[in-house]
Amino acid sequence: MKSVLVTGASGFIGRHCLQPLAARGYQVHALARHSPEHDGGAIWHYADLFDPVATAAVLAQTRPTHLLHLAWDATPGKYWTSTENFRWVAASLNLLDAFERNGGQRVVLAGSCAEYAGNDGPLHETRSALAPRSEYGLCKQALHTLAQSWAQRSGVTLASGRVFHLYGPDEHPARLVPAVVRALLSGEPAECTAGTQLRDFLHVADVAEAFVALLDSAVNEAVNIASGEAVSVAALVQEIAQQIGQPELLRLGARPMGEEPASIVADVERLRHEVGWRPSRTLTQGLAETIAWWRAQADVVHDADA
Amino acid sequence: MKSVLVTGASGFIGRHCLQPLAARGYQVHALARHSPEHDGGAIWHYADLFDPVATAAVLAQTRPTHLLHLAWDATPGKYWTSTENFRWVAASLNLLDAFERNGGQRVVLAGSCAEYAGNDGPLHETRSALAPRSEYGLCKQALHTLAQSWAQRSGVTLASGRVFHLYGPDEHPARLVPAVVRALLSGEPAECTAGTQLRDFLHVADVAEAFVALLDSAVNEAVNIASGEAVSVAALVQEIAQQIGQPELLRLGARPMGEEPASIVADVERLRHEVGWRPSRTLTQGLAETIAWWRAQADVVHDADA
Repeated sequence: MKSVLVTGASGFIGRHCLQPLAARGYQVHALARHSPEHDGGAIWHYADLFDPVATAAVLAQTRPTHLLHLAWDATPGKYWTSTENFRWVAASLNLLDAFERNGGQRVVLAGSCAEYAGNDGPLHETRSALAPRSEYGLCKQALHTLAQSWAQRSGVTLASGRVFHLYGPDEHPARLVPAVVRALLSGEPAECTAGTQLRDFLHVADVAEAFVALLDSAVNEAVNIASGEAVSVAALVQEIAQQIGQPELLRLGARPMGEEPASIVADVERLRHEVGWRPSRTLTQGLAETIAWWRAQADVVHDADA
Repeated sequence: MKSVLVTGASGFIGRHCLQPLAARGYQVHALARHSPEHDGGAIWHYADLFDPVATAAVLAQTRPTHLLHLAWDATPGKYWTSTENFRWVAASLNLLDAFERNGGQRVVLAGSCAEYAGNDGPLHETRSALAPRSEYGLCKQALHTLAQSWAQRSGVTLASGRVFHLYGPDEHPARLVPAVVRALLSGEPAECTAGTQLRDFLHVADVAEAFVALLDSAVNEAVNIASGEAVSVAALVQEIAQQIGQPELLRLGARPMGEEPASIVADVERLRHEVGWRPSRTLTQGLAETIAWWRAQADVVHDADA
């Protein structure tokens, strides 16, 4: 029987991977530091990946054929430049070693669009330059390079899913979509940049399903996990404001643009034709689902206040 | 007081670093897995760098201002392609983290000429292309790239010494110089390739002194640790055979040439003018010292046999 260990299983992407993995016939082992709110039908294990002894013990106990390694530091406002990124490279290499020693056969890593130099049209896995501008991107890229070479020597197959921009229910409230949705649902103004930067947004459940499809495929490369559609941040927040019915509360241009690339958009040919996967939601549908989730949270808070 | 932790302190290079470090005023902490034959005047600690808890304990106890990280897998015939190289990247990143958390200020790593693509004239630290052909070179290069970025974020200064070919007393007997010296001292033929490949040889005690000079300098870059002199392997073994007085036992061309680069020779401008260091031995002197050491070993063996 094929079995998979999912690291970061209680995280934003990880929790959405568990049921799709079970649906494809995997026995699902979920690894996290703490108990999740919902078990997702998986067998849960608790260990700190910075502890190689505890990590090796989980691998020896579960002996998974597959590894979906999503765990990493993602603390908003900090993770781009944190020295934690270097510790995650070390923890990831230790994890791969323990996986292979316990009979593991296939690995999928979580990469990032931050591995690309960026800005040069749709970003392609091999044709676009890799030149990370952040410690996060550097460490993701270095891990992928090392892990590819390690896999060839170890006889393990390995792919990496390069995640672009994602959104969805229960996203960290400090991030763009939740910040705008929550402001507008509360009747407060949402202050944004001019929003001319083009981005590629994918609903978190679609991101998770793409990772599961990649794990279950024969692709042994980096693969962009994205929609392939260029949407300006202005268009994104205008869609949110229109769905909520508060377009007049949107303050485009109220904040200065940061020094960010004008365009971060994926070429998704490899995802569509080699992995054979397409998203199941449009951006309009995904935002509607996300707004509904935040509205339900707000109702719970209001009920609790009442 | 400045203090240094030397990893791989009982190794081929490490053992020669201890007294030069003490001579420059460092309190010297030597780290190894097992007791050495000679203590070199250092304070010895025993820990496995693959165990982050034990590693952190040594750093917390010693709190060195400086770190000279030489430990790595160097098993002849295996280390070029071994998956141990990836474990050493992880162990090294853990070590850097523990060093910085305990107040560390300056690091020197052991890099390698195997980080270069090679073959294009004297290899320069920044002008020559990096494109390792082995897992060993890939992992050394990846560690340096990660560690440079980590150091900038951590406020630690960091340099890397790229070691070329080295030789000297007590080298592993499977390697070129010991194999030829021991054969000729025993009156046996020494079978070699045609030896047309150009290499850059430096005596291990000079390599160690260069590392110490680099640690004690303000250079925060990669620096070639080499002689800067191109010597063919044929000329090297002919010098050995002449010094031993057995030139007729040398069989140049008895073995096929491997698929190795025609030239691996260092540009040493940075070592000479930025670090301000030059070797203290010529190749002729260094080989004489090495032959004398092996002759003394043979005498010991003969005495024991008698």
